[in-house]
Amino acid sequence: MTGGAPVAVPGRIGTDRLSLNQATVKHLSLTEAVALCVRHDIPAIGLWRDRVAEAGLAAAAAAVRAAGLHVSSLCRGGFFTPADADGRRAAHADNLAAIVEAAELGADALVLVCGGLVPGRRDLGLARRMVADAIGDLVPEAVRLGVRLGVEALHPMFCADRCVISSLGEAVDLALRFPADAVGVVVDTYHVWWDARLAGEIARAGARIVSYQVCDWVLPLPQDTLLGRGHLGDGVIDFGPVTAAVAAAGYDGYVEVEIFNASVWDAPPDQTAATVRERFAAVFGGRLAIALRSRPAG
Amino acid sequence: MTGGAPVAVPGRIGTDRLSLNQATVKHLSLTEAVALCVRHDIPAIGLWRDRVAEAGLAAAAAAVRAAGLHVSSLCRGGFFTPADADGRRAAHADNLAAIVEAAELGADALVLVCGGLVPGRRDLGLARRMVADAIGDLVPEAVRLGVRLGVEALHPMFCADRCVISSLGEAVDLALRFPADAVGVVVDTYHVWWDARLAGEIARAGARIVSYQVCDWVLPLPQDTLLGRGHLGDGVIDFGPVTAAVAAAGYDGYVEVEIFNASVWDAPPDQTAATVRERFAAVFGGRLAIALRSRPAG
Repeated sequence: MTGGAPVAVPGRIGTDRLSLNQATVKHLSLTEAVALCVRHDIPAIGLWRDRVAEAGLAAAAAAVRAAGLHVSSLCRGGFFTPADADGRRAAHADNLAAIVEAAELGADALVLVCGGLVPGRRDLGLARRMVADAIGDLVPEAVRLGVRLGVEALHPMFCADRCVISSLGEAVDLALRFPADAVGVVVDTYHVWWDARLAGEIARAGARIVSYQVCDWVLPLPQDTLLGRGHLGDGVIDFGPVTAAVAAAGYDGYVEVEIFNASVWDAPPDQTAATVRERFAAVFGGRLAIALRSRPAG
Repeated sequence: MTGGAPVAVPGRIGTDRLSLNQATVKHLSLTEAVALCVRHDIPAIGLWRDRVAEAGLAAAAAAVRAAGLHVSSLCRGGFFTPADADGRRAAHADNLAAIVEAAELGADALVLVCGGLVPGRRDLGLARRMVADAIGDLVPEAVRLGVRLGVEALHPMFCADRCVISSLGEAVDLALRFPADAVGVVVDTYHVWWDARLAGEIARAGARIVSYQVCDWVLPLPQDTLLGRGHLGDGVIDFGPVTAAVAAAGYDGYVEVEIFNASVWDAPPDQTAATVRERFAAVFGGRLAIALRSRPAG
């Protein structure tokens, strides 16, 4: 290697593919989050339905378009496992509404968090069949409106109460039952980094990957394990191999930084956005190595 | 079905196969735990090395033999991923000592908790290779002394800091590289219950299953996620299908109740032992159904 010229790193991803998931700046309204992205030259955003509803769907769509932002995802549909028929009907209606919103916003994917065990039941297979059936019921509307549903595998620690789809392989198995233009998978490093079969499952997912979300796994886990996420580089995840596998599978969409973390939420949003951008450039640009800060406890 | 006669339940497991893992009554010495098992007609015990050392190896072995108890496991060896050569040498020596102890105690298995990421490194593959190499280095001594090493897959939430073997399938892949009389796998419901591929992996494990440990997954998780375990029936795990798969794979050894839970530890040990026995009989005897107490949060 020679002198000071930039080294071309295979699989390098520039900040032109950075997306900020709105949950990372949880306290901001949609308009504020959009303005933040513009200020920090972040070209895409992942939106949340509650903030979209607060702004109004048409106004939200107009705001992101006026700002020139791409919508890399809408979070989220799912929660398909209510115990009673009324609950399931309500979930179906809510998911249909989410598909309409995703279409109006031009989102690359509607992220699905599928739901945990059926309340009062221990039967994992039942919950998983209900998830598959419920997704099947959404496919016609997704196809009609050109929206891709993204099945997100959540970390197994959320299997009981939040999502019975606990590994990427399982999400791929599920997605493959439906048309590729309607159902894909979300790869989120926080949820799947531990999986020895991850590279193979990413390859198998191939063009089914509709969203790539990133954040780091930081130890120790907080009391609320939903919030144990950190800025890229603050934890132990080795983003290189995962990202290389996602790229090799053909994914060339946005890479969305989504961090649920109470102290990140309490930080000034401009500081958060600057850190997101800087870490993204460092981790995916191959321009500098980030030392491991969280040393695993012995 | 007719009248009041007991119904033969396929795969029913009687309390003659119950083992109490000593960690469930953490505050008791080995002698006290042995006496507790005898008082409650529990025929086997899973021992911990610190308590064995405290009693003295020869005295501990004599105590369990005098009490007529079977030793279903010795916990634990492992932690194979120190960053430096000295640390790895120390781990090897400690594991050799554990094999000697397991042989002296007549334990069915020496449980291995393999260790997390190498401190200061994010490379999962490196950690996993180190685990495989370290186990290989132990195999000759295990064969010589007739001790079976049991690779335990830990829940993926412990991947970074405690065990990079995160699914039963991965543990089986690892065990299959070594002679069957030296290396097997531990199936622990707390760690693997969420896995959609579990039944298939248990079948693949077959005669490699050297220990079956049970406890329940109770929500919400406590701050220290190591301690989120409960008495059988207090959580959401569906023990029937897992146990049927383990039985179908040919496992006919003891079923060890191992509960890490601060409030269980604080309970009077006789109450804990009575509850362990009662729940075991209920869950594995098929004599009564246990209602789901922890309702998953919506």
